Amino acid sequence: MGELVFIGLGLFDEKDITVKGLETARAADTVFAEFYTSSLRGTTPETLRLMVGKPIRVLSRKDLEQGSDVLEAARHGTVALLVPGDPMAATTHVELRLRANEEGIRTRIVHGPSIVSAAAGLLGLQSYKFGRATTVPFTDEKFRPVSPLEVIEENRARGLHTLVLLDLKEGGGFLTAPEAIQYLLDLAREKRSQAFTEDTLVCVLGQAGSDSPRIAAGRAGDIQKRNLGRPLHCLVIPGELHFMEKEALVKLAGAPKDL
Amino acid sequence: MGELVFIGLGLFDEKDITVKGLETARAADTVFAEFYTSSLRGTTPETLRLMVGKPIRVLSRKDLEQGSDVLEAARHGTVALLVPGDPMAATTHVELRLRANEEGIRTRIVHGPSIVSAAAGLLGLQSYKFGRATTVPFTDEKFRPVSPLEVIEENRARGLHTLVLLDLKEGGGFLTAPEAIQYLLDLAREKRSQAFTEDTLVCVLGQAGSDSPRIAAGRAGDIQKRNLGRPLHCLVIPGELHFMEKEALVKLAGAPKDL
Repeated sequence: MGELVFIGLGLFDEKDITVKGLETARAADTVFAEFYTSSLRGTTPETLRLMVGKPIRVLSRKDLEQGSDVLEAARHGTVALLVPGDPMAATTHVELRLRANEEGIRTRIVHGPSIVSAAAGLLGLQSYKFGRATTVPFTDEKFRPVSPLEVIEENRARGLHTLVLLDLKEGGGFLTAPEAIQYLLDLAREKRSQAFTEDTLVCVLGQAGSDSPRIAAGRAGDIQKRNLGRPLHCLVIPGELHFMEKEALVKLAGAPKDL
Repeated sequence: MGELVFIGLGLFDEKDITVKGLETARAADTVFAEFYTSSLRGTTPETLRLMVGKPIRVLSRKDLEQGSDVLEAARHGTVALLVPGDPMAATTHVELRLRANEEGIRTRIVHGPSIVSAAAGLLGLQSYKFGRATTVPFTDEKFRPVSPLEVIEENRARGLHTLVLLDLKEGGGFLTAPEAIQYLLDLAREKRSQAFTEDTLVCVLGQAGSDSPRIAAGRAGDIQKRNLGRPLHCLVIPGELHFMEKEALVKLAGAPKDL
């Protein structure tokens, strides 16, 4: 029986993999990658191939959910599955791991940097003051989930910060920060909630993991109109701010001084 | 003016740094490291020195808080500051970054794997179902903070999981998982809280980031008596479990099947 190793690619480019992750991929018999649960904006599958030094088969969502090619390869040798960020954030990864486990295939995780902790660090916010995270999906007239607003509401009521991830489409297409902010504003208006208004302080993070991440903080009504750079973006809605957190948001993210 | 780069060392050994982090450290004029905010159990400063290929000055807590040597070096060249996990989890890091910023020294973060996301992944729990995290400190008769229990209580009331980090002492000394569980049991008894009893399901994670992390799940009263391997440990107290999360805890962590 072989082994299935989930390897985190980290946040931005081909150099955000750990040394352990790279060595493991180089030593594997078969290398797969998937980019539909998230996206590495600073690199291409071809660059990754050159770095790993062997062919990499990029899996579609369907391939990964189906899983049979990965499991088949892992029955006979060591398989590396490269995934953006830190592995196992998606249920599909956990499901695949359990299926491998069931068959007696050894599984292992080589961790990579995750936006969950990077967002706090880039903004100078304290990680233990974050409540649960949420995602704003692509919405339409029929699909308008209230959960992102509810999570922000629940966290703010406890003085906690909220990490808001923005959805992406397989094969490209990102929900932009202004779109996500507009959705939250509309939702709060409909639900008569005060948890997210034009005056709410919002932090926007772009290109996290790159040499020059784009960081901005401002009132929801203002920040929507700014040029926030290229995707992938995420938002952080701060709760109560400690003195040093305030200073960090003003100095590092250009938040208004009268916070 | 120079540059100060905070580089995450990740979870366990010298190979948990990213390729970008290693290249940045190798190219820096001066390399510092600190191991008091957390600890890399699988390596030594000497091994890191060999890997980076240049001297590394290990900073004490006092050195880091004082910060003058780091800032002095960063005025004239590129400084790499190596820290366990993902940087900026400690207020001291944020403070140092703000001081550098104030002086016109450019700052940058090279992210590393963090226990905040790794704990969820290793246990097969969904990251977005974690509420705020907490730390159990070393306690004595006078210092018995209620906050860890309160955080668990607050999260459980909302069906959320809690990551519980265990404190460590500068220069060695770790709070063990059984000690932390005992403290939570005592505290809950004193406060007549039902949020943490002998029947509460607890997951214990040891040696995260290594090739064979130690993962266990069981009732608080049982798991305390087991051999949980060497530190560093952390705990996860699950909230409501999704079907696949249950399956993961039973199959990967040996949780009781009657969850």
